[in-house]
Amino acid sequence: MTDANTNMRLKLPITCFILEIILIILFGVLVEYDKETDAKKWHHSNHSEYDNDFYYRYPSFQDVHVMIFIGFGFLMTFLQRYGFSSVGFNFLIAALALQWATLMQGFFHGMHGGKIHVGVESMINADFCTGSVLISFGAVLGKTSPVQLLVMAVFEVTLFAVNEFILLSLLGTRDAGGSMTIHTFGAYFGLMVARVLYRPRLDKSKHKNSSVYHSDMFAMIGTLYLWMFWPSFNSAITAHGDDQHRTALNTYYSLAACTLSTYAMSALTAHDGKLDMVHIQNAALAGGVAAGTAGEMMLTPFGSMIVGFLAGIISVLGYKYLSPILESKLKIQDTCGVHNLHGMPGVMGAIVGAVTASLATKEIYGDGLEDVFPMVAPDGRSASSQGGIQAISLAVTLGMALVGGLLVGFIMKLPIYGAPSDASCFEDSIYWEVPGDEEGHAGQLSTVKTEEVAKPEETEKLN
Amino acid sequence: MTDANTNMRLKLPITCFILEIILIILFGVLVEYDKETDAKKWHHSNHSEYDNDFYYRYPSFQDVHVMIFIGFGFLMTFLQRYGFSSVGFNFLIAALALQWATLMQGFFHGMHGGKIHVGVESMINADFCTGSVLISFGAVLGKTSPVQLLVMAVFEVTLFAVNEFILLSLLGTRDAGGSMTIHTFGAYFGLMVARVLYRPRLDKSKHKNSSVYHSDMFAMIGTLYLWMFWPSFNSAITAHGDDQHRTALNTYYSLAACTLSTYAMSALTAHDGKLDMVHIQNAALAGGVAAGTAGEMMLTPFGSMIVGFLAGIISVLGYKYLSPILESKLKIQDTCGVHNLHGMPGVMGAIVGAVTASLATKEIYGDGLEDVFPMVAPDGRSASSQGGIQAISLAVTLGMALVGGLLVGFIMKLPIYGAPSDASCFEDSIYWEVPGDEEGHAGQLSTVKTEEVAKPEETEKLN
Amino acid sequence: MTDANTNMRLKLPITCFILEIILIILFGVLVEYDKETDAKKWHHSNHSEYDNDFYYRYPSFQDVHVMIFIGFGFLMTFLQRYGFSSVGFNFLIAALALQWATLMQGFFHGMHGGKIHVGVESMINADFCTGSVLISFGAVLGKTSPVQLLVMAVFEVTLFAVNEFILLSLLGTRDAGGSMTIHTFGAYFGLMVARVLYRPRLDKSKHKNSSVYHSDMFAMIGTLYLWMFWPSFNSAITAHGDDQHRTALNTYYSLAACTLSTYAMSALTAHDGKLDMVHIQNAALAGGVAAGTAGEMMLTPFGSMIVGFLAGIISVLGYKYLSPILESKLKIQDTCGVHNLHGMPGVMGAIVGAVTASLATKEIYGDGLEDVFPMVAPDGRSASSQGGIQAISLAVTLGMALVGGLLVGFIMKLPIYGAPSDASCFEDSIYWEVPGDEEGHAGQLSTVKTEEVAKPEETEKLN
Repeated sequence: MTDANTNMRLKLPITCFILEIILIILFGVLVEYDKETDAKKWHHSNHSEYDNDFYYRYPSFQDVHVMIFIGFGFLMTFLQRYGFSSVGFNFLIAALALQWATLMQGFFHGMHGGKIHVGVESMINADFCTGSVLISFGAVLGKTSPVQLLVMAVFEVTLFAVNEFILLSLLGTRDAGGSMTIHTFGAYFGLMVARVLYRPRLDKSKHKNSSVYHSDMFAMIGTLYLWMFWPSFNSAITAHGDDQHRTALNTYYSLAACTLSTYAMSALTAHDGKLDMVHIQNAALAGGVAAGTAGEMMLTPFGSMIVGFLAGIISVLGYKYLSPILESKLKIQDTCGVHNLHGMPGVMGAIVGAVTASLATKEIYGDGLEDVFPMVAPDGRSASSQGGIQAISLAVTLGMALVGGLLVGFIMKLPIYGAPSDASCFEDSIYWEVPGDEEGHAGQLSTVKTEEVAKPEETEKLN
Repeated sequence: MTDANTNMRLKLPITCFILEIILIILFGVLVEYDKETDAKKWHHSNHSEYDNDFYYRYPSFQDVHVMIFIGFGFLMTFLQRYGFSSVGFNFLIAALALQWATLMQGFFHGMHGGKIHVGVESMINADFCTGSVLISFGAVLGKTSPVQLLVMAVFEVTLFAVNEFILLSLLGTRDAGGSMTIHTFGAYFGLMVARVLYRPRLDKSKHKNSSVYHSDMFAMIGTLYLWMFWPSFNSAITAHGDDQHRTALNTYYSLAACTLSTYAMSALTAHDGKLDMVHIQNAALAGGVAAGTAGEMMLTPFGSMIVGFLAGIISVLGYKYLSPILESKLKIQDTCGVHNLHGMPGVMGAIVGAVTASLATKEIYGDGLEDVFPMVAPDGRSASSQGGIQAISLAVTLGMALVGGLLVGFIMKLPIYGAPSDASCFEDSIYWEVPGDEEGHAGQLSTVKTEEVAKPEETEKLN
Repeated sequence: MTDANTNMRLKLPITCFILEIILIILFGVLVEYDKETDAKKWHHSNHSEYDNDFYYRYPSFQDVHVMIFIGFGFLMTFLQRYGFSSVGFNFLIAALALQWATLMQGFFHGMHGGKIHVGVESMINADFCTGSVLISFGAVLGKTSPVQLLVMAVFEVTLFAVNEFILLSLLGTRDAGGSMTIHTFGAYFGLMVARVLYRPRLDKSKHKNSSVYHSDMFAMIGTLYLWMFWPSFNSAITAHGDDQHRTALNTYYSLAACTLSTYAMSALTAHDGKLDMVHIQNAALAGGVAAGTAGEMMLTPFGSMIVGFLAGIISVLGYKYLSPILESKLKIQDTCGVHNLHGMPGVMGAIVGAVTASLATKEIYGDGLEDVFPMVAPDGRSASSQGGIQAISLAVTLGMALVGGLLVGFIMKLPIYGAPSDASCFEDSIYWEVPGDEEGHAGQLSTVKTEEVAKPEETEKLN
């Protein structure tokens, strides 16, 4: 399993060191504490220590942080021999992406006297941007080297920040939970990268592109953390007060309804009426994605549940019927099915957001209208204009993602990053020292090479 | 492993769709945002955004949420071949129960102009009610179909809400952490259901009703999350301020003391002085259950530790000596031993609560008396009356649970839900597509059907 | 695997019961609620319920709590046959240590009229002290009985409290995240204990002193929870407001940079350029340790990233080159490599803290200087004196840890605690009832002894 091409001894260290040193230098030049984290600035104003935004955002941040590292990381451990890479590369590219995102988002969202200000809000935003990269990672999971993934992360974060700037700052789009900026962008970007990196001979490693019993159990850890903390995700950067509260509530109901429709559709469509772990692990989350834009609006629990209910149905149908077509017709090998979990539900969330925005009235929102739609109230654009802007934002996001993914896909296709061969995809041992498998009697086996573990004649000798 | 009776292709989708559509309609008609989640109502009053209850309850809610989905879900994964079902059915019935509980609790705890108000408090209460259903699930784990479980959830949530209404609203009982309403109710309800569903030939699947090394490791994830977050559980809906703070503290000490006595008793009673994972996974949690009622009172750390210490001892003794008797004499097959973890410690918690309440004085509680015992202070019932009411509440709860469990057990016994046969209990592959088992060398095995993985000649014998 | 010496039937119960009963008595005599948890005292003052420190510290506490029980517990499950003990003994000694630490820290940090006051701050401090014991546990993992570990915990907690008292109360040292008090102390204490307990014939169980595929996956759960929540750890007991906020932010950047350098160094130094799970699981956390002292200071994101970057490098180099030397030359068998994760990064963190403190000026900190360096502002010692004190504190801590570890090591060496023989180290079945290993076909095997699971002739037929 050793191969000069996929050997990371120099490629990975050089990439990591160069990137991190650039980051450190740029942070030294550009970044400073915001007024809530700076000892001098904070104490300059006259307020209670308890007014610090840390207390109102940090618990949400920590939930988001768990989703990024445990949620995404373990969700992808469903592959039988790719657990180290799933959780380990997720860890690596997330650690890079959040630093780079701090710079890119800080640059685009407004410098303060030439400086980027950081605090809990920038931490949440950086984690959000990282989430988008991890969605794209899901599309190419198992078929890429860590260096390729780092390259993808650098470019994708940059384009994410540009798209986010266009939407939130230029167009005044509302997208608190990122149905568009995070999910739609991440999914279609990743799908386009997967298209460019298409491997016609991927069937060589087909036997490893599936789960085993325990890997599905590990993946459920990821699923549940994403599911439980999605209300925190969608509400993490909305306005304080009723907005955060309502967003969490809406997302909670959307997810609950989505779970019921996911189980129903899984049993209905799967073999012999048996539930399929792929559906449960993924489609049950679509309700969170689909409530990403409208969650902060007055969607009502009723509306949230309808959205979640439909998202679950669409997502399972996607896994069952659309993914095979994507691979056979469009040559998109979407390992985790991000199109079904983030792509379609993200688009759906954007549409639901546009419709909900266009129906906003002072009657419904009262003085809270300004918090949710600052461009609409008091005398800005009309609600239907806001709805139109929301729809345009979806188109912009799709365009940015598809073109961006295409370009970055070609950059990633350069044969210099140590990508695995077709036969060694979905296999940890290309990039990791992998120990033996069997506990209990692994003692005797631990000196035996991984590849030989299951050979009967050796077990025989042992006994 | 395919069987027309247990085939879920129609049964599960129909049940899920009907239930969810009813829920959505009822939410549309009955549910609206409360004043903390509604944009108009919240901005109508004059207060700081930071006064929103979201900031004071949501972190507790998230801890409770983790207990419900990860805690209960993984605690039950100890069975060797029932991990998908344990965590997956837990997920399904919890997602249903929290929606239905919102309606039932909203209905019983007071409508507002014909509407049920929702916000973070209703979310916590719904999760609490769900916890009770999951306790009952533990008693029947491995022996029921998902449709049966959904039916149980619908009825149990309803009865839970009635019992909770009688206790909290009619009697003025204090039970912040639910020693009675959640644990005692859930345990005895589940035990009665298990009694009705008694399977004399369950020994046919006895070989699957045990753990393997890794399944015990997964179960420890559930245990530890329950243990760590129990202080949040017990304090989630107490009064703000010192009450929440004190409840968390008391529970923390009760659990710590319980852990020591659990390890002691496990080594003392188990085979060869070796620790038994069943005890560690379960009995170490009894301290949280037993502090569920008195936790918010001035129990003192000293009192909390005594309670936890005794709860651990009782629980281990229950697992060791009482569970076998329950099965042989009372024909109650309690898969997870919920009688030992939730039943007896719940009753103990109720009694401790009654005693502690009857000892309450203005001397001890000062002006905080009203927060803990609103019926006692300033000039309501006496402390000893409150203690009496607490004791009566335990009796009411036991009655409701036993009668309710009996009735619902008979409903669940109808042969229409696709329950597994005696020989296929504790087996995921009845209801789930199950992949192979062996990682590392699963490559070669992945083309082999699940059913054949386990050594052909042995499977042969089984069939 | 049954052995009269290691039989815990009497040793463990007696130890647990005696310790817990002593604790309960001392709590009864010495401990009372502080003014934030006592109903009377809290309501005596005139403040909002929302001012209760519960709301500003409890989320941090819960993150720390997860680190102690899940983080440390699962981090140590990397050993193939020691998962029950890793997570189970971690659970046991943590539950003891947090109770004892409450008393010891309460005693040394100031009694109130002969009473120890408890609340969320004492809970955090007790968990911190427990963390130190768990670090030492990492050094002796696999080679000690639970009774030995309980004995270690009692003594180490006591010495920890003395050292903490000297630093924080007598010297006025700043060490919010415990680079010195927790990490340096715990590591060098544990290393000294490991030195005293040196086993020249440990190679007898060498084949069990390694990981298997799934045990490394479980360990990653521990790693990621430690990594994600370290910002909460370092900021849990700093001053409110900007201090907590800044500390979390600094730690976040330190860890991110550390992760990049860890991956780089792992690929650079490990076999064939492949990543080594030992490095990823451990060294990626060194950035949190190294930011433990200076994290609350105006270290800047730039400084934090440099610190984290270097900590990752040092830690990987330690695992690769120093650990073998420690074992061969100094006879220190450091199972988890705590010297590389907590020892060197802890010392580094202390030095960084001393330097950062000595550079503190009113210019930089403004009116916030007093929060971070109460001894410096307004007219106390100079910043350079504070830096000197910080350096002296490191020396004191090292001295206390080494001498303390030496003494406690000899106490632990007494042949009365049921320590495992050289051949049965790193083996759960000495102290635990251990079930079989193989899921799916474990049904048939569950009556078969663990040692026989891998029947050669059956494996043969499969191939």
